[in-house]
Amino acid sequence: MKRILAADIGGTTCKLGVFTPDLELLDKWEIPTDTTDEGSRILEDIHQSFKSKGDDHELNLAGVIGIGLGVPGPVDFNNGILNGAINLNWMEQKPIVSEFESISGIRTIVDNDANVAALGEQFKGAGSGHKDVVMVTLGTGVGGGVVSNSMLIHGHGGAAGEIGHLYVDYNRRFQCNCGKKGCLETVASATGMKNLAVHYYESGMTDTLLKNGIEAGTLSAKSIVEAGEKDDALALKVIDEVAHYIAVALSSLSAVTNPKYFILGGGVSRAGRMLTDRIEAYYRPITFPPAYENTEIVMAELGNDAGIYGAARLVKQFLA
Amino acid sequence: MKRILAADIGGTTCKLGVFTPDLELLDKWEIPTDTTDEGSRILEDIHQSFKSKGDDHELNLAGVIGIGLGVPGPVDFNNGILNGAINLNWMEQKPIVSEFESISGIRTIVDNDANVAALGEQFKGAGSGHKDVVMVTLGTGVGGGVVSNSMLIHGHGGAAGEIGHLYVDYNRRFQCNCGKKGCLETVASATGMKNLAVHYYESGMTDTLLKNGIEAGTLSAKSIVEAGEKDDALALKVIDEVAHYIAVALSSLSAVTNPKYFILGGGVSRAGRMLTDRIEAYYRPITFPPAYENTEIVMAELGNDAGIYGAARLVKQFLA
Repeated sequence: MKRILAADIGGTTCKLGVFTPDLELLDKWEIPTDTTDEGSRILEDIHQSFKSKGDDHELNLAGVIGIGLGVPGPVDFNNGILNGAINLNWMEQKPIVSEFESISGIRTIVDNDANVAALGEQFKGAGSGHKDVVMVTLGTGVGGGVVSNSMLIHGHGGAAGEIGHLYVDYNRRFQCNCGKKGCLETVASATGMKNLAVHYYESGMTDTLLKNGIEAGTLSAKSIVEAGEKDDALALKVIDEVAHYIAVALSSLSAVTNPKYFILGGGVSRAGRMLTDRIEAYYRPITFPPAYENTEIVMAELGNDAGIYGAARLVKQFLA
Repeated sequence: MKRILAADIGGTTCKLGVFTPDLELLDKWEIPTDTTDEGSRILEDIHQSFKSKGDDHELNLAGVIGIGLGVPGPVDFNNGILNGAINLNWMEQKPIVSEFESISGIRTIVDNDANVAALGEQFKGAGSGHKDVVMVTLGTGVGGGVVSNSMLIHGHGGAAGEIGHLYVDYNRRFQCNCGKKGCLETVASATGMKNLAVHYYESGMTDTLLKNGIEAGTLSAKSIVEAGEKDDALALKVIDEVAHYIAVALSSLSAVTNPKYFILGGGVSRAGRMLTDRIEAYYRPITFPPAYENTEIVMAELGNDAGIYGAARLVKQFLA
């Protein structure tokens, strides 16, 4: 029987999946990610786990069309090279396609984890039935992926879809991990929410439920959302500003790629309507009408499975 | 002999071209655009002009692979429908592919003129040899097109690549034709340069070579550039601000699509290094390093021929 395999490699666990050639999920499971010894056993562990599952799914190497891998780092898609992944202790450039192919004998394709999650949501999740979607993952940082005409956009150097680094804060108040200031990630991720809360607290908004957390350095995005639900003025100012910057980013994404859906995921998106209602209110008045008319802002549906769906889809698109 | 035809339909003239199947240009010429009677003769005139050229290029209908049309209005690419073109007196939605096919019997494909120009520059002009480029045309308005992996990005409703409507002026000072404020077009086109000059003049910068033009309402983008070359403070402030907003737009485009080239065209781009040096100086410090590292800002090369090259390329991509 023909099968497609997928692995979404994270810093703690690897999510593995077995699919039919029509991308029906037959089974999924997780294995721990062994990042010791510079992560030298990660790929072998994935291969062994699939091998040991073989009998369950009429799975044998000869019947595998290919495997798709999602990895937490920047990928040169055309050449199958990962430019390092700090969370996996892969500090150097890694020719991951050729390495996995020589371990397994299975044709391999690799992309960034945010990209494969976007592709998964596009074809099987919240974007199902539409060819043009943008996924925005609001977590510790801000990640994302742009799917246009059912294909991920990679760009010349593989740095397309880097939504967290859209330049939105003209005041350039906070330092980003990328070395710049003003990135969406500095004002709209969990980290960004904390940046803003501390900033306005230090600017004099000290009458807040968040006072202890800020003073103790234990502030979390979750505590800001909870304070917002209690109408805390500082928390609401932060949430309002987060929504404004996300709306600016969505407006840019609309004028450039005109998606049917913006699919929001990640922990910060769990703020729910308090956040999304504000995003909607800012987004439409600043956006070119033909570029938002049929566009909807929706929540991701596949959760942690988005990555394996997208990785399997890549196999179908490029190796089948 | 097999041939590909192309027509770039403008408000004053239609540029026509005959290409080989390998997209070598054999001949090009122009005919006037007859916009009377609601532009009802435009398509027939194009067909007749190709027919009368037939003998020159061993051109007969049986040997024509297809024709590509560029039109000055928003296009539903998948359905071959133009949603009106004010400059052609086509005020209603027009099923242009089916109309031209029934007139000519030739398979037809249509796209927006800014998009076909971008595609032409990508494959034959300044972007030649690279699959990922963005064209930005700085004219009376700001137009553009995004080519990713050698394909134009259209988006869900055909409104992708609307670079002129990127939201960049958070102060929302000037009204855009689209109904919004804050669009790139309001601060970076010829119109935008005038907006800014008048704005700063009225704010007190009255010691300027542009005084008479502003007072008389005859100010032009060209006169602002000329004053800038003479170190006029108001003119330089305008050019600096134009460059800043273009840089913000290019920064967003880099994070979303990571092109190899930004190809600048249109009258405002003739300001040359005075403008592009300033764009460069603003662009790189605000952009995600992996998304600009290998990116260059260059000038368009094909001039008015970009449209017919791009329209012919569409035939090759979709009808050949």
